[in-house]
Amino acid sequence: MTESDWLTAFESALEDGDVAAATTLFHDGSYWRDLIAFTWNIVTFESRTAIADMLKARLGDVRPRAFRLDGTEGWFTFETAVGRGRGQLRLKDGKASTLFTALMELKGFEEKAGPTRELGVVHGAMRGRETWTDRRNADAEELGITRQPFVLVVGGGQGGIALGARLKRIGVPALIIDRLPRPGDAWRRRYKSLCLHDPVWYDHLPYLPFPDHWPVYTPKDKMGDWLEAYTKIMELDYWSSTTCQKATWDEAKQEWRVVVERDGKPLTLHPKHLVLATGMSGFPTVPRFPGADLFKGRQHHSSQHTGGEGWAGKRCVVIGANNSAHDIAADLWEHGADVTMIQRSPTLVMRSETLAHSRALYSEEAVKSGIDADTADLISASLPYALLPSVVQPFVAKSRQDDAAFYERLAAAGFMLTFGEDESGIGPMYARRGSGYYIEVGASELIANGDIKLCSGVEVARLAEDGVILSDGRELKADLVVYATGYGSMNQWAAALISPEVADKVGKVWGLGSDTAKDPGPWEGELRNMWKPTAQDGLWFHGGNLAQSRHYSRYLALQLKARLEGLPTPVYGRAAVHHRA
Amino acid sequence: MTESDWLTAFESALEDGDVAAATTLFHDGSYWRDLIAFTWNIVTFESRTAIADMLKARLGDVRPRAFRLDGTEGWFTFETAVGRGRGQLRLKDGKASTLFTALMELKGFEEKAGPTRELGVVHGAMRGRETWTDRRNADAEELGITRQPFVLVVGGGQGGIALGARLKRIGVPALIIDRLPRPGDAWRRRYKSLCLHDPVWYDHLPYLPFPDHWPVYTPKDKMGDWLEAYTKIMELDYWSSTTCQKATWDEAKQEWRVVVERDGKPLTLHPKHLVLATGMSGFPTVPRFPGADLFKGRQHHSSQHTGGEGWAGKRCVVIGANNSAHDIAADLWEHGADVTMIQRSPTLVMRSETLAHSRALYSEEAVKSGIDADTADLISASLPYALLPSVVQPFVAKSRQDDAAFYERLAAAGFMLTFGEDESGIGPMYARRGSGYYIEVGASELIANGDIKLCSGVEVARLAEDGVILSDGRELKADLVVYATGYGSMNQWAAALISPEVADKVGKVWGLGSDTAKDPGPWEGELRNMWKPTAQDGLWFHGGNLAQSRHYSRYLALQLKARLEGLPTPVYGRAAVHHRA
Repeated sequence: MTESDWLTAFESALEDGDVAAATTLFHDGSYWRDLIAFTWNIVTFESRTAIADMLKARLGDVRPRAFRLDGTEGWFTFETAVGRGRGQLRLKDGKASTLFTALMELKGFEEKAGPTRELGVVHGAMRGRETWTDRRNADAEELGITRQPFVLVVGGGQGGIALGARLKRIGVPALIIDRLPRPGDAWRRRYKSLCLHDPVWYDHLPYLPFPDHWPVYTPKDKMGDWLEAYTKIMELDYWSSTTCQKATWDEAKQEWRVVVERDGKPLTLHPKHLVLATGMSGFPTVPRFPGADLFKGRQHHSSQHTGGEGWAGKRCVVIGANNSAHDIAADLWEHGADVTMIQRSPTLVMRSETLAHSRALYSEEAVKSGIDADTADLISASLPYALLPSVVQPFVAKSRQDDAAFYERLAAAGFMLTFGEDESGIGPMYARRGSGYYIEVGASELIANGDIKLCSGVEVARLAEDGVILSDGRELKADLVVYATGYGSMNQWAAALISPEVADKVGKVWGLGSDTAKDPGPWEGELRNMWKPTAQDGLWFHGGNLAQSRHYSRYLALQLKARLEGLPTPVYGRAAVHHRA
Repeated sequence: MTESDWLTAFESALEDGDVAAATTLFHDGSYWRDLIAFTWNIVTFESRTAIADMLKARLGDVRPRAFRLDGTEGWFTFETAVGRGRGQLRLKDGKASTLFTALMELKGFEEKAGPTRELGVVHGAMRGRETWTDRRNADAEELGITRQPFVLVVGGGQGGIALGARLKRIGVPALIIDRLPRPGDAWRRRYKSLCLHDPVWYDHLPYLPFPDHWPVYTPKDKMGDWLEAYTKIMELDYWSSTTCQKATWDEAKQEWRVVVERDGKPLTLHPKHLVLATGMSGFPTVPRFPGADLFKGRQHHSSQHTGGEGWAGKRCVVIGANNSAHDIAADLWEHGADVTMIQRSPTLVMRSETLAHSRALYSEEAVKSGIDADTADLISASLPYALLPSVVQPFVAKSRQDDAAFYERLAAAGFMLTFGEDESGIGPMYARRGSGYYIEVGASELIANGDIKLCSGVEVARLAEDGVILSDGRELKADLVVYATGYGSMNQWAAALISPEVADKVGKVWGLGSDTAKDPGPWEGELRNMWKPTAQDGLWFHGGNLAQSRHYSRYLALQLKARLEGLPTPVYGRAAVHHRA
């Protein structure tokens, strides 16, 4: 059976409401990943039975039709009762091994772009004319003051900004608040040498791609400035210097009561929806070592470390061995400090150049062959999480081989390596726990050649007045101790801004249920609570890296738009909450 | 003969240095337009003899080769000794009726974009690391202070900014200065209801197109904000609040001595090249009417008119009947003023909607069929100016017919119409004199229905204490007189900033030599002095509408880059200077 035959048979079965016939078209161990097109949810069905159950429950509402192949490799378009979608089909021996469906737009609420863009001017003469600027200024002045936003986005980093742009394009009144003075400040405030670790093709924001001279690895200040310009260009409603103090769900009114402080003044907002886009990390995790209060040097968490300036000739101990630990250790070394890293557990290290080869979809070659970031995002999303490890394991194996000399030198220096519990590398590890790795851009070489000293396989026993005492009894004299010990989870934000009860009700955010370190089972097959309805009405989580913020902001925005317009949005296949925050 | 055969024969003749054979491939009345590829000049040859002369003089240097058709409709690529070009051939009965050649890049000095973009970070660890921001800040702080710019661009509107971006991409140290506090202020300061009169597809800046929801007619403040963001994103060296006081050419040093005032402090710059990008208009032209000093109301030039606010119920007289006059009259009417327009000579009026139909190359349909702004620019440029009227006359004739009712009503109100001396409409009129027309977006309707009163075919005799006295004896009571009487030419800037002698030496800027109103002959076939070498070493003029600023900035930037890199740039076919400034 060809893809075309399959789609015809599938459509015909769906039209007839013949779930059995539709289901026969799938292998038993097949996958159907749906991004809100059939389920108003982000969910992957991993068996024929699960697919059948979903179809039985949803076919009547969804009324899918008009499946048409639209290009290469099984990609197709389709329609539902309320929208238009894209999908992808992979066949094996004439039956579906994976199906992917994604809602791309809502009928009647399409983005005004290209031929439907606004005119910008009203031709003809009229008294009391309101210009674009009048309207924009009035809008900005009213929103949050005399007119409530439908959506409040807490956090104005790339995630909140990308979502804000999506919402603006489909006419959802949204307000973004951020505690810092200017959009982009979260980047500007990081240590001086920081550049994005992902290459440019992976990092575009929606609608306005970087110009084609943009450097491969965007320097942090340049990224900050881009975000600021983007916010202005897209006419986002963005309140800077504004902190969220407390959010309470009003069950009766079905809306939030959010107390914020804007430029130091309190103000209450009443949005229908609250999006936490506070970064996928929660609060800094600072271990409490005995004796920390005795230590006479400086000690701070990596989030408070602004750079190596001023530490030349000083003894610096960095506790931790993931990305921040490496970046900070290298930066301190570059500024002439004497640096020791304490590695307590194995780290996944991949060389940046090697990793870039695994991202063929996001590359100059992809661009040349017509695959822009949006297309690459869809292709990436079409692969079920369950299949990701098997797809990337061969790449990891090859990288270990290609970079064998590098890994040997690292190991010889005592560095403890891992490639993930199932040898699947950074991608799955990021989805599972969001940390645990370092993308090598220089620090590993410093460790290998001894420029950065390493104490591995040890714990910190306690701090003394003048340094750190390790579990094996060694003493490290120190003027500075940096806790590169990571962050809590996004749930902490929900607990702090709303309540511990709501955070527990919603459960763990991020992770797949892979039953690997920091990602307890049972298997969920999707990132928990991300970009989709949670157990708390009106509460949403948004974030991830730039590619995720770009891609999934589309589906979150469509879900919010549907609710704004009063479309029925019955959520199918909600994951049970197994883990408290 | 097919296009492919023609190019093969042409290349072979050129390779053999056989000018006679090459020339036989052209009709006698054929045209060859060259944008710096063969001539280091912008010039159109309008006869077989002229083509033969050029080839005799230039073949040895240029060494053109590798002519290859690269798409539809006669488009081809080619190489010269120093660069790569694109061109277009139109055949009639097997011989060339028009040939177009344009240099697109210099070998060894290509823009760093796509696969050759910068890395943005230097991987590895190094002490004394200089980050992107360090380098950018150092660059910005040094340029014009401890390090001289190769190019000084006077005027930071869209022209200067587009050129600045081109120069930045090919590594020409350039400084843009502008008298206003922020990039984009020239737009922000205009009257409130102003929007671009050209549609969005025509208005993109280089490298960073507007996102596809951008309105068709960009409101002026939005345009100002875009220019400001663009300046920052492209990392242009832009000094705002800086005026050029005096520029002097130092013949011995072959450089300029330019006194500027930056934030009120004098400073001297020594660029090798000076680009006047001060707008294609010179200084406001304010007629001196007898009695102007007696008039007790307010009188100002259109350039000083900020809008209709405050003029409700007042009697306002607008002298002039071109774009500004119409826009200002309509804006005053919208604010409740009693408005009279004084039309002294016929005006070319085209309805905006009608005009948009004549711009098929710059439209949503064009974008859909793969014609972006850069492609459309090349297609437009491939038509010699001499052929433009005959191409556009049919459109003008059709528009007159389609809009006959509109024109009849305007005429019935006494409005004096023209469609150009040869009925060729706005395009040619803009190239010839840069003014004389109005694109109807509402004011004509107000005139037709009498909301804006009209006195036409009269002159202003004098001003009285309380109004304007016309040549036919009529008296118009007035609280406000707006002189929408246009601007002088760009030459005025050269005269004021450099000297009247240099302005005269360079001669008239803009115009084709069409021997129509304000464009005296002899025929030149190109815009005088625009984007190409002038009679004054190191002096260049840049400007025009957004499309011209975008397109011709490429060739001006390449000419400057060639000079920076010391490539030989012998200029062929310099136009004689027939007209003093």
